[in-house]
Amino acid sequence: MAGEIYFATSNPHKLREAKGLFEAKGIPLKHFKFSHNEIRSDSPEEIAKEAVEAAYKELKKPVFTEDTGLFIESLNGFPGTYSGWVQKKLGCRGILRLLKGETDRSAAFQTSIAFHDGKGIRSFDGICKGKIADNEIGESGFGYDPIFMPEGHPQTFAQNIELKNKLSHRYKTLSKLSEFLLKAYF
Amino acid sequence: MAGEIYFATSNPHKLREAKGLFEAKGIPLKHFKFSHNEIRSDSPEEIAKEAVEAAYKELKKPVFTEDTGLFIESLNGFPGTYSGWVQKKLGCRGILRLLKGETDRSAAFQTSIAFHDGKGIRSFDGICKGKIADNEIGESGFGYDPIFMPEGHPQTFAQNIELKNKLSHRYKTLSKLSEFLLKAYF
Repeated sequence: MAGEIYFATSNPHKLREAKGLFEAKGIPLKHFKFSHNEIRSDSPEEIAKEAVEAAYKELKKPVFTEDTGLFIESLNGFPGTYSGWVQKKLGCRGILRLLKGETDRSAAFQTSIAFHDGKGIRSFDGICKGKIADNEIGESGFGYDPIFMPEGHPQTFAQNIELKNKLSHRYKTLSKLSEFLLKAYF
Repeated sequence: MAGEIYFATSNPHKLREAKGLFEAKGIPLKHFKFSHNEIRSDSPEEIAKEAVEAAYKELKKPVFTEDTGLFIESLNGFPGTYSGWVQKKLGCRGILRLLKGETDRSAAFQTSIAFHDGKGIRSFDGICKGKIADNEIGESGFGYDPIFMPEGHPQTFAQNIELKNKLSHRYKTLSKLSEFLLKAYF
C-alpha cells in the first residue's frame, strides 16, 4: 500500500531533516502541524508514544512523532527530555558551568520516534554516544551541537555538520523508520 | 454551606503543611490521592489550573491543587516550574555552580493554588522574594531551603524553619485560600 505518511511536529528544523532523508528514499512526507502539550517523563520513548496517540486521534492517518534528549552521565541524565527548555534557559554555557572540573564528561543523545497507523504503535530509537567538550566550538547546527563530540571524533557537531548528519541519533532513528516504511507501505 | 474540601496531591510534605494550617482555622481538609501528569508550562498558575480540572473531573467534589517553583533571575527563571525535577538531578550544588561568580542572585519562590468547586476555578498566588546564598547553610526543610534567603533576612530557610513557616510562598497562598473558604463555605 502506497500511503501518505505525516510527521507531527512544530519544529521546522526537524521537519526539514526528515523530509530530506525520506525524499531521498522516495517516501513522500507530509507535515502535520501539531502543537501538543507533551507529558513529563524522563523517557523520550514514552513522550513520543503519548504524543503519537494524540496525533493519530486528531489526524486519523499514518503519523509519527519524535522526541530527543541529551543525557549527561555525571549530571544524572540532565538535561534529558527537557533539553530544549534547558537550552533556552541556560544555553551551552550553563552545561559547561555545571561540568566545570568534572572529569567524567560522557553523554549521549537519544532520539525516539513513535509511528501510529491506526493498527498500533511502533517505536524506533537511535543513540549517539560522545562527550561534552571543554568549551563551545564551531558554528554549524543548533542547540548543544557546539559542545557535543561524538565518540571517536575530536570535533564537535558544530565543527563538522557532515559528521552530525551521518552519525546523529536523529538520522539513525529516521533511517530505521524509513526502512520499516519502505517494507511495510511502499 | 459546610463542605468537604480536598487537596489533590501526591506530596506528603505539602499535605501536612496544608492540614496544619487548615485545621488551626477549623477547616477540615481531606486528601485526594492524585497522581497526574502535569502539563509543561513556565507558569505555576497554568499548571495548577490544568491539574485541578483533571482532579475535579475525577473526584466531583470541591478540590484544590498546588504548584510551586523557584525562579532565579540571572538564570532566566530556571529552574522555575521544573524545580522538583532539577533538584533531583542537580541538587542545590548545581544551582550554586550555575551562579558561581554571579552578583545578581535575586530569586523568588512562587506558589499557585487552583480551587474548583464545580461552578468554576479560582486561583491564588503567593510569592516570597529573596536571594540565593553563596553556600548551602542549615539543616531544616527540604529542596532549595539551604540556599534560599528571604528578603530582609540574613538566614536561609533551612537555618530558620519558623521564618519559612511564616514567610513562605506556600503559607501565603494557603492562607489566602483558607480565608476565601471560610467566607464562602463555612
